Amino acid sequence: MDETNIKSLDRLTNEFSRLPGVGKKTAARYAYFIVTGSKEQAEGFADAILEAKKSVRFCKNCGNFSDGDLCNICKKRGEKTICVVKEPKDVLAIEKAHSYTGSYHVLHGTINPLANIAPKDIKIAELMQRIAKGQTEEVILATSPDVEGEATAMYIASLVKPYGIKVTRIAQGLAAGTQLEFADEVTLTRAIADRKEV
Amino acid sequence: MDETNIKSLDRLTNEFSRLPGVGKKTAARYAYFIVTGSKEQAEGFADAILEAKKSVRFCKNCGNFSDGDLCNICKKRGEKTICVVKEPKDVLAIEKAHSYTGSYHVLHGTINPLANIAPKDIKIAELMQRIAKGQTEEVILATSPDVEGEATAMYIASLVKPYGIKVTRIAQGLAAGTQLEFADEVTLTRAIADRKEV
Repeated sequence: MDETNIKSLDRLTNEFSRLPGVGKKTAARYAYFIVTGSKEQAEGFADAILEAKKSVRFCKNCGNFSDGDLCNICKKRGEKTICVVKEPKDVLAIEKAHSYTGSYHVLHGTINPLANIAPKDIKIAELMQRIAKGQTEEVILATSPDVEGEATAMYIASLVKPYGIKVTRIAQGLAAGTQLEFADEVTLTRAIADRKEV
Repeated sequence: MDETNIKSLDRLTNEFSRLPGVGKKTAARYAYFIVTGSKEQAEGFADAILEAKKSVRFCKNCGNFSDGDLCNICKKRGEKTICVVKEPKDVLAIEKAHSYTGSYHVLHGTINPLANIAPKDIKIAELMQRIAKGQTEEVILATSPDVEGEATAMYIASLVKPYGIKVTRIAQGLAAGTQLEFADEVTLTRAIADRKEV
């Protein structure tokens, strides 16, 4: 379904197609779902968008989602260990593992010259301000092990190390439950290089 | 990202996850896109939902999307040939091919006993009312060649035939540009059975 010649429907399809990973056909399916649903459902949806946009803020300290100035994690945990991640959803992923008890810093992006994202475009300056307070003992670089994530991690490491702070990178190797024969060469090389004595 | 403990964000994620084919993770990604976007974008999105729900109606004659009582197709084309389809987007698909110049009838579903969709739940009665007017010479059954589409086509054929009207089914065979070796058995069987002299 492309142009329906019904202005409001085409406009809604267009709005849906702005969402990440949504093409014209999927957007049209979503728009069709809305117009064939009940009036209450459509109103609830529209209200949820406005309400979330109005009330969801970002923690002034770490950049995570928050409903106040500071997020719940920053309120409770100190600045001793800071785990640096790309997006708020990465915080949630690590929190779900229930194994880390330090604070976070959300970069809201990774350095990517091809997409014109420079270090100044992500929240690196804010991280350095936190570190300058002198309460931090370790910075864990937990960006993804892809090109942009690695480059960002290396860049931040070069900024943090002069402070004499321990800088670590999350381990890379075979994921739990996967089979060795299906691992790619880079992963296998790293898994062997970073082998641990048992 | 599952629960963020930020009520309005979880609510928006929940709304997005109602859309067809959208799971929790995708819904969270959409919600993240909304809250990280501009206020104007969020307001435009919410307004597009309300506006579409308010102004998009269905043509009283054929059931296609419309912004008035009658859709643009019904206003211009007669009742001589009626092409029966499942959903409004099927009308758009056929219109894009620019080869059919008759009218349509949108069923808004197909008969599906497993999902409790009986003939009375789709717009078959409305089709029969149109046919009863006596202006129709041919009914083209253009539901998809799947189990529900075939059953619906056969059911409608049995209702229309007593009126002495020509009833046709869209052709089935190999799709243009596909390779014979990858065609399934049913398609190949039909393609051979419905072979045409050249």
